[in-house]
Amino acid sequence: MLAPDELGPTLCIGEILVEIVADTVGQGFTEAQALTGPFPSGAPAIFIDQCGRIGGSAAMIGTVGDDDFGRLNIERLHRDGIDVSAIAVDPELPTGSAFVRYRPDGSRDFVFNLAHSAAARIGWTDPVRRIIDRAAHLHVMGTALAMTPAWPLIDDALESVRARGGTVSFDPNLRKELITDPQIGPRIQRVMAMTNLLLPSEAELELVGTDPERLFAQGISEIVVKRGAAGAIAYRPGEDPVASPAFVVEERDPTGAGDCFGGAYVACRRLGLTVQRALDYASAAGARNVTFIGPMEGAGTRAELDAFIATTERRT
Amino acid sequence: MLAPDELGPTLCIGEILVEIVADTVGQGFTEAQALTGPFPSGAPAIFIDQCGRIGGSAAMIGTVGDDDFGRLNIERLHRDGIDVSAIAVDPELPTGSAFVRYRPDGSRDFVFNLAHSAAARIGWTDPVRRIIDRAAHLHVMGTALAMTPAWPLIDDALESVRARGGTVSFDPNLRKELITDPQIGPRIQRVMAMTNLLLPSEAELELVGTDPERLFAQGISEIVVKRGAAGAIAYRPGEDPVASPAFVVEERDPTGAGDCFGGAYVACRRLGLTVQRALDYASAAGARNVTFIGPMEGAGTRAELDAFIATTERRT
Repeated sequence: MLAPDELGPTLCIGEILVEIVADTVGQGFTEAQALTGPFPSGAPAIFIDQCGRIGGSAAMIGTVGDDDFGRLNIERLHRDGIDVSAIAVDPELPTGSAFVRYRPDGSRDFVFNLAHSAAARIGWTDPVRRIIDRAAHLHVMGTALAMTPAWPLIDDALESVRARGGTVSFDPNLRKELITDPQIGPRIQRVMAMTNLLLPSEAELELVGTDPERLFAQGISEIVVKRGAAGAIAYRPGEDPVASPAFVVEERDPTGAGDCFGGAYVACRRLGLTVQRALDYASAAGARNVTFIGPMEGAGTRAELDAFIATTERRT
Repeated sequence: MLAPDELGPTLCIGEILVEIVADTVGQGFTEAQALTGPFPSGAPAIFIDQCGRIGGSAAMIGTVGDDDFGRLNIERLHRDGIDVSAIAVDPELPTGSAFVRYRPDGSRDFVFNLAHSAAARIGWTDPVRRIIDRAAHLHVMGTALAMTPAWPLIDDALESVRARGGTVSFDPNLRKELITDPQIGPRIQRVMAMTNLLLPSEAELELVGTDPERLFAQGISEIVVKRGAAGAIAYRPGEDPVASPAFVVEERDPTGAGDCFGGAYVACRRLGLTVQRALDYASAAGARNVTFIGPMEGAGTRAELDAFIATTERRT
């Protein structure tokens, strides 16, 4: 259903940043405390890293600063097999950053530098043009829809990839209450109209529609709903839903779970695995990642995920 | 010689930022590592914090972001008695930041976000105008001369403070090889022409001139040279130099030593202490600060510095 892996890379476009994680649970960053970082991060980067690590061909478009934080991101993605030729280095602005601290109730405090970082300098370059023209699959990460300079690239890639017979997946990954930019609604509509594979969490279903049949009628041919501890379910027109129970893990850092889930699912499907096997790998990738501190530190290779699946209990 | 403390606050204008310090010695930030922070920082902020902590009246002009890092800085300065009414909160840009890691040879690697942070949004506001009009002493921190938007405020304050019979101190605090902006030279000349008290390190003397008599002829009436382990020396026209030997301490984090030295010296002189006593407090303030991790964590109250002096060995 998705364009096969050999036709060209899966492309993701959006923010690349570093994340610094507080070692202790508590309220915010108004006092000095133990931290760990910088970790490579950004939802699109986490997605594409897991995609590459599990064996899918993958490429990333984004912009970092000319600093150690940018080099850290490029080196990690390159190590994991991602085509980084279209990651630009901005000579002026620093690499985007996010400080994250978990509160006792599981919610998070952030200090972001994104809108005025190199991440927001994303734009057209020759390597960007070339990678869009080579991609066989585009994954649209919802977070990037809130970054206005990324939209012309995503919009072009949607058209370009689909026109060549490529496919599109979409992870809404935007909380409804955080959408204040009136342009985001139309962008979501445009992406939805081009989407083959939809990867919402249960909460994000309200953003895109909860009835699979209506979504199928719009042209979507595969819907995978991430339900956390309740596991994941895949819907396809005219077929029985396919379920994958959640793995039982000790959560150390939930950031990146949904992005790793998506990266593994898209790569596995493009590599020709069945919905059931792709769903199992995706669930494993998400679950394994939360056992590591750092947003993409637990992104697994296929061998690592096989070992994880073989040794980890599942909810019944 | 300096305007007495009761006439109005010592004013410092410049960058306010947070500092995140690597726990281990090594090369840069291209991998995740143990960090501690955010610490309140920025050379002008460190100076003014020590000035306030030792009991001088003090005020700060600068800009932070609307985030925890900004609140951390404002709260610290407020706690230490600084007038923070002219610290602006920029609604868009994040508070400036610096990641610092010491290399094995004692040099430092940095990742800065300063030029495109709230710190660079410093500018005229009503509270800024009011505090400049109230200040009895202006301390010019060399680092702020490299921040173009701060210059009109500093330039105005030089004129305004001197016109009211106030005084000016200047810490060059700029490495010659780092000065690439051709406007900085003329700014230094302008500040030097208005300076009463000059506070260079030995290395910075080449920037402003090494001959005390020539500096006295330009109108400077007190020169205090910071010589690190070789102690500090004060020169005044027609008087014997006054020396203060260095304290023997275990250095944990040298950042901020010169700024604390300056803050203590200026405050003590304005409070009426002799050159010798001010020099001893200044040496103690610099030495005590390096025994704390974090650029202004060791800024001492007068009681803390008395205790430090009473219990710490000095080089002979």
